[in-house]
Amino acid sequence: MFITFEGIDGAGKSTQVKKLRKYLTEKGHEVLTLREPGGTVVAENIRDLLLTSKHDITPIGELLLFSASRAELVQNVILPAIESGITVIADRFYDSTTAYQGYGRGIDLQLLRQINSIATFGLEPDITFCLDISPEDALIRKFSEKSIPLAFDESELDRMESSGLAFYQRVREGYLKLAEDEKRRFVMLDAGNKTEHIHDLIKQRLAAFYPDFFR
Amino acid sequence: MFITFEGIDGAGKSTQVKKLRKYLTEKGHEVLTLREPGGTVVAENIRDLLLTSKHDITPIGELLLFSASRAELVQNVILPAIESGITVIADRFYDSTTAYQGYGRGIDLQLLRQINSIATFGLEPDITFCLDISPEDALIRKFSEKSIPLAFDESELDRMESSGLAFYQRVREGYLKLAEDEKRRFVMLDAGNKTEHIHDLIKQRLAAFYPDFFR
Repeated sequence: MFITFEGIDGAGKSTQVKKLRKYLTEKGHEVLTLREPGGTVVAENIRDLLLTSKHDITPIGELLLFSASRAELVQNVILPAIESGITVIADRFYDSTTAYQGYGRGIDLQLLRQINSIATFGLEPDITFCLDISPEDALIRKFSEKSIPLAFDESELDRMESSGLAFYQRVREGYLKLAEDEKRRFVMLDAGNKTEHIHDLIKQRLAAFYPDFFR
Repeated sequence: MFITFEGIDGAGKSTQVKKLRKYLTEKGHEVLTLREPGGTVVAENIRDLLLTSKHDITPIGELLLFSASRAELVQNVILPAIESGITVIADRFYDSTTAYQGYGRGIDLQLLRQINSIATFGLEPDITFCLDISPEDALIRKFSEKSIPLAFDESELDRMESSGLAFYQRVREGYLKLAEDEKRRFVMLDAGNKTEHIHDLIKQRLAAFYPDFFR
């Protein structure tokens, strides 16, 4: 089973990934959790380039770098794990590319579908949990986590974070459109709920989708 | 004008690029020479990753990294230069991707055309000089340049070079097929000729293609 988590930064994805991993592991499943971009040595190098570069990266360059990182991860890690019967939980997958590079940066969606399909060798998530939050709330949550005073220095933000609230608003709307287009696998959750409540909803949806798996 | 040089490593591209730059500059043209992958800070970082990584990179990951580097170079350097009336000479462009990743590594050529078109924003070279040499001769030439004894240590080779002679044979055949498919702009030259003679042939072809430019 291949489960992905989506949502803008600060929505609480990594917390839910950890809780779900713990839950599934305790139920006896072998679980591998991953984050994108990254997950292999080469992909982590690409991650560094994408997130820490002080130099402008063109939208198409960014798209191709994210996709290169994903191709490494899918071929070297995700596909072999799935074939071995391991449940893979990914913190971001190609829906992030559609939301960030497509809706956020304005890259043609048809083009994105082509690139996504190339980079994933056709692999699709079985189920995707998307944590929905307003960019304002996400920013406040993120900075309170980092214990940075609200009158923060912009240089503290990484390159993606410094793209501004308007950008994150477009990304959020992209996720909402994805939820409409990908009804079969996309589960939207209100990130404003308590962590435990969200975790319960995720468990319920998984049990409903895969009754055998959670018997 | 956008001039590209192609051919397997050791064919003598960089020597011809330097001679052509000198010639065109002396004729009063403003000339910018570039090498691929690289040419911007981000693209040089990608170059380092591609050429020096000790870790395996998947063929699709490699393709996407080369394309990301190219997108950076085209958007930030090549297109602005051409728009300013500067003659751009590139040591490798997308024909390298077709020859190396397509014919060499076996990636689907139709897929390559899509990616190449995305990464170049549709830009095509006006004329391409391809220096043809056998992989065996290229290797001997390259190692004699580096003053490495013929009983060399394989670890001295960079990641691309260590792909083996059979790979370079496929790449060479790819270039020969490209010459058939892209007759309008592709000029094949025997790299076994003397440097000065090849340079003269290049000047002649340019003068024939662009009489106004070389008046």
